[in-house]
Amino acid sequence: MNAAMIDRYAKLAVGFGANVQPGQIVTVNAELGREQLVRAVAAHAYAAGAKHVEVNYADAFVRRARIEHGRDGAIGFAPSWQVERIHEMGQQHVAQITIEGGIDPAATAGLDEEKLGADQPPTRQEYLKLVVDRLINWTIIAMPTEPWARQVHPDLAADQALERLWSQVVNICRLDEDDPVVAWQARMTRLLEVAARLTERRFDAIGFRGPGTDLTVGLLPSSRWLAANFHTAGGIEHHPNLPSEEVFTTPDPERVDGSVTSTMPLQIEGTIIRGLRVRFEGGRAVDIDADEGAGMLRARAARDEGAPRLGEVALVDADGRIGPHRTVFYNTLFDENAASHIALGHAYTFALDDDADHARANHSSIHIDFMIGSAEMEVDGITGGDRVPLLRGGAWQV
Amino acid sequence: MNAAMIDRYAKLAVGFGANVQPGQIVTVNAELGREQLVRAVAAHAYAAGAKHVEVNYADAFVRRARIEHGRDGAIGFAPSWQVERIHEMGQQHVAQITIEGGIDPAATAGLDEEKLGADQPPTRQEYLKLVVDRLINWTIIAMPTEPWARQVHPDLAADQALERLWSQVVNICRLDEDDPVVAWQARMTRLLEVAARLTERRFDAIGFRGPGTDLTVGLLPSSRWLAANFHTAGGIEHHPNLPSEEVFTTPDPERVDGSVTSTMPLQIEGTIIRGLRVRFEGGRAVDIDADEGAGMLRARAARDEGAPRLGEVALVDADGRIGPHRTVFYNTLFDENAASHIALGHAYTFALDDDADHARANHSSIHIDFMIGSAEMEVDGITGGDRVPLLRGGAWQV
Repeated sequence: MNAAMIDRYAKLAVGFGANVQPGQIVTVNAELGREQLVRAVAAHAYAAGAKHVEVNYADAFVRRARIEHGRDGAIGFAPSWQVERIHEMGQQHVAQITIEGGIDPAATAGLDEEKLGADQPPTRQEYLKLVVDRLINWTIIAMPTEPWARQVHPDLAADQALERLWSQVVNICRLDEDDPVVAWQARMTRLLEVAARLTERRFDAIGFRGPGTDLTVGLLPSSRWLAANFHTAGGIEHHPNLPSEEVFTTPDPERVDGSVTSTMPLQIEGTIIRGLRVRFEGGRAVDIDADEGAGMLRARAARDEGAPRLGEVALVDADGRIGPHRTVFYNTLFDENAASHIALGHAYTFALDDDADHARANHSSIHIDFMIGSAEMEVDGITGGDRVPLLRGGAWQV
Repeated sequence: MNAAMIDRYAKLAVGFGANVQPGQIVTVNAELGREQLVRAVAAHAYAAGAKHVEVNYADAFVRRARIEHGRDGAIGFAPSWQVERIHEMGQQHVAQITIEGGIDPAATAGLDEEKLGADQPPTRQEYLKLVVDRLINWTIIAMPTEPWARQVHPDLAADQALERLWSQVVNICRLDEDDPVVAWQARMTRLLEVAARLTERRFDAIGFRGPGTDLTVGLLPSSRWLAANFHTAGGIEHHPNLPSEEVFTTPDPERVDGSVTSTMPLQIEGTIIRGLRVRFEGGRAVDIDADEGAGMLRARAARDEGAPRLGEVALVDADGRIGPHRTVFYNTLFDENAASHIALGHAYTFALDDDADHARANHSSIHIDFMIGSAEMEVDGITGGDRVPLLRGGAWQV
């Protein structure tokens, strides 16, 4: 991608996305291969007055070495200073920019799924606290790389695949607009309106019916619908996902029942889970099955009491820019914003108006979204015996 | 380089170099571009029983963004958790493997030398403490990359330059021996014998005379000569530099007088200092001049009271494997082991037999070696009025 477009993307992430403030420390996380965008982000962050930009490049092949050669105690371990670092990031209210994208399939090919599932360090849970307590202003973006592009467009030559993926990302992130910020503000305004209307109805539950799916997700009495327009506890507005096309809220982790078939493959840290089917009873995922990769997700969902319960339910209409590309991106940031989704694990308690509901929301060391929406999926709001249509053919009915 | 040789190099670094122990946390530092060796090191470290391998990839272009766009407070700043991390690494007695090599000249081209000089974070001083207190077993190696190879062999095509630099590194690191460890042990035995003989003489000072150089470096009463065969306070033997061809000791920071002309260019974090000339009075570098890059070194030498004083004096004979390549490597790990050298900054107090001398040794937040040896350099041991020849034409006289 040309340097001017990279610069535009970085500027959007630093400004509209994380909204970096003068004097803030900025942490940047990226898998290797995204250096060009990382450096542009660093330049924009320093230009915005950042006191420091700390870049952490992750290398999926180092994790491969751990899974292959590490002794038992090595799986899922993190040095104490890494956990302390995350805690301090919250205390010092950093800004954080994560640059995602696919992971080279060679980094995970043939590895033990149970070990991959178990290899989640304690830093993850510490990080979820920062998000839930709204201590940091953060955003996640993604940068196309050749391994990712080959995964998304396997029928194209590598360079064409990369070019095509970039053009899709540019379109989806509104970088092709005269002013991407204005375009995003317009979309956010629309999503916030929908969220407000959903909140007003105070539905008792959301129902999903479609091929392979008949699921009821109970809500809590004070569940408020949000769009991905967040404010830190200190009042810094930020947009945690670019792109974001969803409205979401926090469900009742005790009242989820039925079966759901995922409508898209799910990629978790390089492991791809295909044909995922989950059955819930009394809020708990009692069966997790898949055509491929189930072991990894089962291991994650067995980590703690809250891991097999829901922490999020999100609705996505067909007006977003991702769906029309009719592309599976093998990346949750993109795929979850093309389709309604639910997440196993920790809940965003800030989506609950009543503090009394906070203790009822789900608590876990994981948070894993998976996609359940499609044009065929009928989504209803349920109150008492009434079912109110919310989405039909991907269009809002409210 | 082929995977088998990379594997051999990694094994040498993990075993003979850092001597990673079962259950240790291993920190790996590398500039981007050295992923292949980093991953092989990670695999060998896990196979050796490491509890965790933490890889930190540095990106010189992120530093470039800081120098170009960072506000005043950003230069030389590090988040508190980075300093705390180094402290904890010492408390937890990690093993550390640093993979050096050249830095792409594009990362520093045209940057303000004063800012580059000032941009040393407090983590550096904290790290020097770990080394001086012998809290960690560590090693430094280097991996050829294309930008480095082009710097070393500018007359060759890029691929040929890389191939040539690799073949030199393989030779210098004894990776071309049937058993590199046996070859290194033989060389270390020889260097330790020389060091023992030098220590026995208890010279009052070392004299250097050669083109542009007439320098006397006073020693402390208990200065002991060492080779790069270290033991942690807990007793783990390790080899901190691969390659290493030097014997060295800790000088008297108050008794260094005369002038010295560096015999090789010096590369500090990508900045190249050519034609360096330093004049010392009463131990202090009172003039630092150079044909190129002086500003960067002057800024470093002005950081604290000890920065313009010597913390190390090292002698290198012509039997090592680096000199015969007649190559300037633009990398201190290689160049300092081709020629006698001195270092501005912090002293290795463990090279002093008498605790009373520890307080007299130099203390600083910097440690910067520069090369002063050559075939023309006459190195003498001085006691009273006597000058005993130590090196003539690169050959030991003792």
